Amino acid sequence: MSGYYDDLEIRSADQREADHLSALNRQLEVAKVDGFEKPLQSLDELARLPLLRKSELIRMQAENLPFGGIPVNEVAHVFQSPGPIYEPGGISHDWWRMGRFLHALGIGKDDIIQNCFSYHLTPAGMIFENGAQAVGARVLPAGPGQTELQVKAASEIGVTGYAGTPDFLKIILDKAEETGRELKISKAAVGGGALFPSLREEYADRGIVCRQCYATADIGNIAYESEAMEGMIVDEGVIVEIVTPGTGIPVTPGQVGEVVVTTFNPDYPLIRFATGDLSASIEGASPCGRTNIRIKGWMGRADQTTKIKGMFVRPEQVASLMSRHEEIVRARVVVTRKNEKDAMIVKVETDRGNAEQYKKSVGDLLKLNGRIEIVPVGSLPNDGLVIEDARSYD
Amino acid sequence: MSGYYDDLEIRSADQREADHLSALNRQLEVAKVDGFEKPLQSLDELARLPLLRKSELIRMQAENLPFGGIPVNEVAHVFQSPGPIYEPGGISHDWWRMGRFLHALGIGKDDIIQNCFSYHLTPAGMIFENGAQAVGARVLPAGPGQTELQVKAASEIGVTGYAGTPDFLKIILDKAEETGRELKISKAAVGGGALFPSLREEYADRGIVCRQCYATADIGNIAYESEAMEGMIVDEGVIVEIVTPGTGIPVTPGQVGEVVVTTFNPDYPLIRFATGDLSASIEGASPCGRTNIRIKGWMGRADQTTKIKGMFVRPEQVASLMSRHEEIVRARVVVTRKNEKDAMIVKVETDRGNAEQYKKSVGDLLKLNGRIEIVPVGSLPNDGLVIEDARSYD
Repeated sequence: MSGYYDDLEIRSADQREADHLSALNRQLEVAKVDGFEKPLQSLDELARLPLLRKSELIRMQAENLPFGGIPVNEVAHVFQSPGPIYEPGGISHDWWRMGRFLHALGIGKDDIIQNCFSYHLTPAGMIFENGAQAVGARVLPAGPGQTELQVKAASEIGVTGYAGTPDFLKIILDKAEETGRELKISKAAVGGGALFPSLREEYADRGIVCRQCYATADIGNIAYESEAMEGMIVDEGVIVEIVTPGTGIPVTPGQVGEVVVTTFNPDYPLIRFATGDLSASIEGASPCGRTNIRIKGWMGRADQTTKIKGMFVRPEQVASLMSRHEEIVRARVVVTRKNEKDAMIVKVETDRGNAEQYKKSVGDLLKLNGRIEIVPVGSLPNDGLVIEDARSYD
Repeated sequence: MSGYYDDLEIRSADQREADHLSALNRQLEVAKVDGFEKPLQSLDELARLPLLRKSELIRMQAENLPFGGIPVNEVAHVFQSPGPIYEPGGISHDWWRMGRFLHALGIGKDDIIQNCFSYHLTPAGMIFENGAQAVGARVLPAGPGQTELQVKAASEIGVTGYAGTPDFLKIILDKAEETGRELKISKAAVGGGALFPSLREEYADRGIVCRQCYATADIGNIAYESEAMEGMIVDEGVIVEIVTPGTGIPVTPGQVGEVVVTTFNPDYPLIRFATGDLSASIEGASPCGRTNIRIKGWMGRADQTTKIKGMFVRPEQVASLMSRHEEIVRARVVVTRKNEKDAMIVKVETDRGNAEQYKKSVGDLLKLNGRIEIVPVGSLPNDGLVIEDARSYD
């Protein structure tokens, strides 16, 4: 094994909490966030600050191009991701913190990485480029095309590692086989798409250790797989919260919810950035010895806004139902289709209260009539859904 | 104006010569070039060292992947250019010396450069990326596609400068006009293709100062245009020689010949690299005050190898004719076509000698019979051609 990237990975939970609290308070100063009592006394107080949704960031940027008024410091790049949304990028250090993930995968100064993420407009290529530089690996900047030339280069240069989407590596390997070229790729750092277990197995059969990271264009690396292969370990440069979709309220540990990230990067201080992705924390410690909390990785999209009977119903509305009635533990809107008409059921987890008393609130808040169904606490599935679209048009 | 990039640009010719001589001797140590008396006592002695042709570099690389045994030091990238040929790249400093060109164009820390060179496989994107970082400009890494998104980004971010091929800027400007977007691009740094005067004029009419550099994937920047707009000023980190095609012998100043470059970059020490491009030096000093020699820029390809009567005739063969007969000042093979047959004329510039005495040498060295034509010294055109293909198949 390659050892830890630094001591941060193995600090005690108390130490990390203390470090994070001071880093967070520094970051709140940098971000010029106001409207709360400073400094925060504990990390729990972070949950009182407002979320920054992607849709809100796009709106802020439209009003104040390119970075929406967020105080951006040392920046070398401007990127454009679909949205469109603009992201800054830096080069003075491992700006997106990808080095930790690559190091955990065993990538270092003896490696040559074929970087198949695009460098054009999107930051993906530069995110992995910077990470490779942080661990001293050489990079073949390759992008996501020109497969035949890539295979030739990989074999002639002696590429040892791959960075890219989970699927494109297979295209390279198959083309190498087809053209009779031998490759030395033994490590693959993937992201930006789902890695199916069968594909990971195929890579393993071909002698390649393939591990995932969970990263976004705005934040950079958020969590990564280690040799323990038990979920993803949260990066040391961010705070991850899992919240009930449509709210900023943290779920109880282990429950599926939306991933909310606060970075310590002073160049682009995003506080409580709501990723729109679903995940859940994993209890216990990783066998690899890294002490940070773990999450399950990407479990779907959190934005479940759905049109019911021609009206939009948003997770935020379901959340407002819960906050009006404190005894509701969880709520879930289920849409079905009967006789070519939408039907709405609102399932409410509670051990007090009754259907009748929620009827009016549902009409007020969701602007729709629906059947209320009281269910026992803990009976709704743990999948992060607050709006379930169960319509079938067959 | 933005002033000079550094004092190197305005040092005296004597100072530059002394500096270059010591840099060259250091570089010869780094490159582990042998077979001559060290150290060199004057820059003229450089002409005794062998050329490194691109074809030779490709052969060396094939035998010793990826860099052909050239001692490569601090390197962060491996690139693949058409050939294929591999090039190293670094990030520790302005590795390809593009900063000087961008600075002369007035690009600095208040600029945002839309870098439309590709970052994938080829080093072009990274060459300009590094140069922009050297002058503190921000970069939108854009690549050569996705025109509509690029226009949107350029207008929303407020891009002020363009880097790319001469033609692609027009595509961006036209698309902006078509979609009603206003752009603030006022400076364009172009390379990698011919810039026609009419296109430069069109850019000027649209408020854009467009200047060219002459660079290659192996060497980086070789020469660049300044505000003087009188040819291209040679970069301070290289020695440029103009030689008779097919030889390593410098032409007399002002004559067209092949561009041969020696770099001072210790990470990739190329000595007398024959670019395969034609150019000529320009006498006198640049009105902008930069004191280095100037060249005319790209004037065509130096490799004039031609098939005559089914046999290859190479510039090297014409050169060997000249070296066998010292009184020949210049020689030029002209191929014409008569009665559906190739005909070869060898024009020889000399004030001594006669046609008969060269007949045997032409048969020996060019392996072809041809008519010898003695012409007055100085009468052959100054276009760098030693083999002129004047065949017409109409």
